Amino acid sequence: MSIYLHDISLDEAQARLEQALRERGLFECLGSEPIPLDEAAAGRVLAEPVWAKISSPNYHASAMDGFALQASATAGAQPNQPVILKCGGLGDQPPQTVYVDTGDPVPGWADAVIPIENVEALDEREEPAADPRRPAAIRLRAAVTPWSNIRALGEDIVASQLVLPAGHTLRPVDLGAIGACGHTQVQVTRKPYVAILPTGSELVPLGQAAKPGDIIEYNSLMLAGQVNEWGGQATRFPIIPDDFDEICAQVRRAASEHDLILLNAGASAGSEDFSSRVVESLGELLVHGVAVRPGHPVILGMIERASDAAGGRTAFAPIIGVPGYPVSAALTAEIFVEPLIARWLGRPPRDPIRVQAALTRKATSPAGDDDYVRMAAGYVGDRLLAAPLARGSGMITSLVRADGITIIPRGSQGLPAGAPVEVRLYRSPNDLKRTIFAIGSHDMTLDLMAQFLAQRNRRLASANVGSMGGLIALQRGEAHLAGSHLLDPETGSYNLKFIRETLPGVAVKVVSLVGRQQGLLVAKGNPKRIQRLEDLSRPDVRFINRQRGAGTRVLLDYHLTLLSIAPQAIQGYNQEEFTHLAVAAAVASGRADCGLGIAAAAQALELDFIPLFNENYELIIPSRFYEDALLRPLLDLLTEAQFQRAVASLPGYEVSHMGALVAEVS
Amino acid sequence: MSIYLHDISLDEAQARLEQALRERGLFECLGSEPIPLDEAAAGRVLAEPVWAKISSPNYHASAMDGFALQASATAGAQPNQPVILKCGGLGDQPPQTVYVDTGDPVPGWADAVIPIENVEALDEREEPAADPRRPAAIRLRAAVTPWSNIRALGEDIVASQLVLPAGHTLRPVDLGAIGACGHTQVQVTRKPYVAILPTGSELVPLGQAAKPGDIIEYNSLMLAGQVNEWGGQATRFPIIPDDFDEICAQVRRAASEHDLILLNAGASAGSEDFSSRVVESLGELLVHGVAVRPGHPVILGMIERASDAAGGRTAFAPIIGVPGYPVSAALTAEIFVEPLIARWLGRPPRDPIRVQAALTRKATSPAGDDDYVRMAAGYVGDRLLAAPLARGSGMITSLVRADGITIIPRGSQGLPAGAPVEVRLYRSPNDLKRTIFAIGSHDMTLDLMAQFLAQRNRRLASANVGSMGGLIALQRGEAHLAGSHLLDPETGSYNLKFIRETLPGVAVKVVSLVGRQQGLLVAKGNPKRIQRLEDLSRPDVRFINRQRGAGTRVLLDYHLTLLSIAPQAIQGYNQEEFTHLAVAAAVASGRADCGLGIAAAAQALELDFIPLFNENYELIIPSRFYEDALLRPLLDLLTEAQFQRAVASLPGYEVSHMGALVAEVS
Repeated sequence: MSIYLHDISLDEAQARLEQALRERGLFECLGSEPIPLDEAAAGRVLAEPVWAKISSPNYHASAMDGFALQASATAGAQPNQPVILKCGGLGDQPPQTVYVDTGDPVPGWADAVIPIENVEALDEREEPAADPRRPAAIRLRAAVTPWSNIRALGEDIVASQLVLPAGHTLRPVDLGAIGACGHTQVQVTRKPYVAILPTGSELVPLGQAAKPGDIIEYNSLMLAGQVNEWGGQATRFPIIPDDFDEICAQVRRAASEHDLILLNAGASAGSEDFSSRVVESLGELLVHGVAVRPGHPVILGMIERASDAAGGRTAFAPIIGVPGYPVSAALTAEIFVEPLIARWLGRPPRDPIRVQAALTRKATSPAGDDDYVRMAAGYVGDRLLAAPLARGSGMITSLVRADGITIIPRGSQGLPAGAPVEVRLYRSPNDLKRTIFAIGSHDMTLDLMAQFLAQRNRRLASANVGSMGGLIALQRGEAHLAGSHLLDPETGSYNLKFIRETLPGVAVKVVSLVGRQQGLLVAKGNPKRIQRLEDLSRPDVRFINRQRGAGTRVLLDYHLTLLSIAPQAIQGYNQEEFTHLAVAAAVASGRADCGLGIAAAAQALELDFIPLFNENYELIIPSRFYEDALLRPLLDLLTEAQFQRAVASLPGYEVSHMGALVAEVS
Repeated sequence: MSIYLHDISLDEAQARLEQALRERGLFECLGSEPIPLDEAAAGRVLAEPVWAKISSPNYHASAMDGFALQASATAGAQPNQPVILKCGGLGDQPPQTVYVDTGDPVPGWADAVIPIENVEALDEREEPAADPRRPAAIRLRAAVTPWSNIRALGEDIVASQLVLPAGHTLRPVDLGAIGACGHTQVQVTRKPYVAILPTGSELVPLGQAAKPGDIIEYNSLMLAGQVNEWGGQATRFPIIPDDFDEICAQVRRAASEHDLILLNAGASAGSEDFSSRVVESLGELLVHGVAVRPGHPVILGMIERASDAAGGRTAFAPIIGVPGYPVSAALTAEIFVEPLIARWLGRPPRDPIRVQAALTRKATSPAGDDDYVRMAAGYVGDRLLAAPLARGSGMITSLVRADGITIIPRGSQGLPAGAPVEVRLYRSPNDLKRTIFAIGSHDMTLDLMAQFLAQRNRRLASANVGSMGGLIALQRGEAHLAGSHLLDPETGSYNLKFIRETLPGVAVKVVSLVGRQQGLLVAKGNPKRIQRLEDLSRPDVRFINRQRGAGTRVLLDYHLTLLSIAPQAIQGYNQEEFTHLAVAAAVASGRADCGLGIAAAAQALELDFIPLFNENYELIIPSRFYEDALLRPLLDLLTEAQFQRAVASLPGYEVSHMGALVAEVS
């Protein structure tokens, strides 16, 4: 029987997989194996409870360097009424006392230890002994209670008690306890073997020069990393081209030696169809298409394996058709693979820490899907904020930057700005308290700053929304600082006018970051011989613009007005990008002939640069954050020679005022 | 120069180590190495920032299966005014449109993609095309905006941007991003090599039959696990006997090939002196004795290594003399080794999650030391409670059970019950919400219950304080349930009278757990021929008792009264143990001749058992917790056949009433 279905709910998909696994006896641990009790056992999962074989200590041990004795023999000892005990035994009689080191067994006739510092060690003549550890007798001036300074047999662990339950993931201290109670090996669950098969004729391996149309295959790397982190053992197969028979052959081979197959399709709809046909041909297609975003085209199935030689039974291996886009691939693994590995290992599934945060901006969502939204999260003042990251399933950086995930469930078309959301954290909640949010204009200095701050116990999370967008973020209390370079055409000054307009009544400090050149970014060699702003209106010149509210856009519009050039005269004036680097990328790709931006962006993408203007790029910092310990490392950085040198080495940058307090607005 | 000091503060000790490392250039990353970008790179720390070498996508890619075209050619298309675009080019002219799969490059002449489902694919006669992906032309009825359905070059990553900062620990998604932007290897920091040298003539390796006085050497296993978990690479040396020259030789050898030496002394004061002399002889002793508990006798020093062949310089390796008791050893590693490995790897030190909890009972502390108290922590109702675990530095189980650590700083002599304390968690805070606290009488069924609950997303943390202690814990709101078997001599019933006395006004449910036999535990073969309770007053019989408030103690006292036996007539009546197993251990070790306890404890330690009484062991559960979802799996367990069978297989147990609601008290 084969079922071909579209867009069933995530719950339903998981239930079908569970049912299929149960029917085939695959919904439990895959088996167990004894492994030696050594440091490599850390991270493995106990298949059986550990019961103590022996007690610890497994004898009555002295807890001090001192003298073992019978407590009753010390009865009545007082400062002015000392008791003397002899160290040598007479004939069959045990001695009255004997020296023991810490950890030594206490003799059977003794029931207490007195620390060496509490006795006077004597020689035969009752003079102080030469070696206090080998006296002829001891004198003591206080009675001792029974069992004092003895670590009794079983004080820590009693033979037969439960030390650790099955399903426990072993930590270093557990290894110690297991060794202490007499084990030399542990019975752990077998690691699941997971085969990862990347398919797609467009894929090229890492490091192979990629021409347009080639896609670097890195999903298998990411999936293998995930599988291993979760306790499985991943095998990466070489790239398989889009050839039905070849994919079938490789899946069959993989199934013979692995417990789970991840068939990573290319990103195209055609490639995905291949995967479902392969599963239908080799076994049973359980699910095709789940109402989850990203990850929609996921396929779940069950492959028949070659018959089991030992039992003669036909065995099965689940197969998961993992979508081709990297974010879809990673999330599909989190949703379907992690819980399965957990079950096979006998440990609980991962349970991320959840925090409540306020959404910084509206998040739209398809009503039919469970929508997994990657979030940057952090505290601004006392509020924990969650800012949705780029949504595209091709945006691997959205996963790299994500502090967590918010699931907007089916039935909701999204959430308004300010809505409370639950964020399932990828990081320690401690990290959220060391995060500085910089929202505003993009400058490459911020990348360098992020790098330097990472060494100073701070994370810089920057969102590029342009200078004006940054001031608005400050007004909404969504950022600690904004980078801004908004020119006031009337005064030639920067930012102040806009701060007064946008942040009335908010006390802020304005700190100089850099002076920088703005100019035209053109292709290497400047084939269109673009020299001045006037060239933008030439019919053969395609421009790429920055978004409204960007300081660079304000600068452009100001100079266009001075030159009386109408925006309509410029081809591409309405094409907007959000960063200098994106403008440079547009020029580098030939999508546009030129754009206005900074020299560093031109250099980064090997473009030519035609300098036009100098401008000031400043940090706008609300006074309440300026004083905060969170920002201290950032402000200190601005006066550090090493950081200034790194910035000055970027082309078109000038750092002579870096860190200067330019203005205070209250 | 050699410094011999006692009991300097932890801060001072850390400062001295830091200073010594700085002076020798050892307070920074040990170096870096390129490694291939594969799944084994996960967990390594970046030595350098990762800047993008290429953009991702590195060409304009179609985001859909569809047709590439020039947006301007679709201007004016409307439902009743379709536009037709031809697929074939004419001579040098590019085609008007061309089919592209998702991920395909968009041709240079095109600036938009229209999804295949939004067009009518036509053949030469403008009839529907046989293959919609290979039509002669397409008809569309709506205009397309430029750059729609195109993933522009650099949409995810722009060449030259910062992808990840140095000091970042690589996760699977990071590997994907690094691959996406053109790298095939990563520059990571070198792992520190850490030698672990166990010393002590009393030590025996794991698995070697341990006679009294032998101590199983498992510290090196625990330390190696910690070092590896923190990102170092541990080498365990064989046990070195207490021989000064041999220890020196091994330390010298270890120093030649390792970055850090952990010299794990035996537990005795003498063994520790050995370590300090070795350090003085081979280098410089920086610190001997730190005011921290456990871990007091820690030694910090710097060993001269054989001169560096390449540079001719004399190099140094830090050495840490790790105390011999396991808890001291593990905490010393956390305090001194983890931050050092972090620094050498270039990552931030571990930063545990901290929670505020209320102390369940008074914790005394030496005023002179920073006192590291292991805590069990969990929610009882809305209150997060922290219960101090056994304090002895030989109690490895206190670390296994610890949910976290509270540091009682120098200058404080302890904290009263109820005091707010900060707990640095060893576990996810989520675990604290799945913890059931069972405080009361000990029964082996609770060990089994802990094992079964571990498979059901619950943790059972049990503290053994006797039946009466359990009722008091319930009264204080410190436990979810108490196991109790308090006989009311007047009525022959269990628990109810004591519940009414101890928990006035508290609604509780009483649930039957087991019926069980109580009797005398005696050595195998019963050499003293003990048969009845009357034998306890024989002069040749040494008894071991349970603590006041234990149900077994109540039972004993009841029957002694019936028989008119005076406690003073019983040798050992004042010797108290807190669990059945501890009583059994006392008998097994010969410390006592008999004790009163349960059959299962006798069997566990291979003792003989003389049955005397049957009793009911019940769970006392406040009604507010009885209804709580937290306890549901526990209550369900009581009626599960598998659990009942496991309990019934213990000797002397009877499960016919298990799970029955015996009484409700309100």
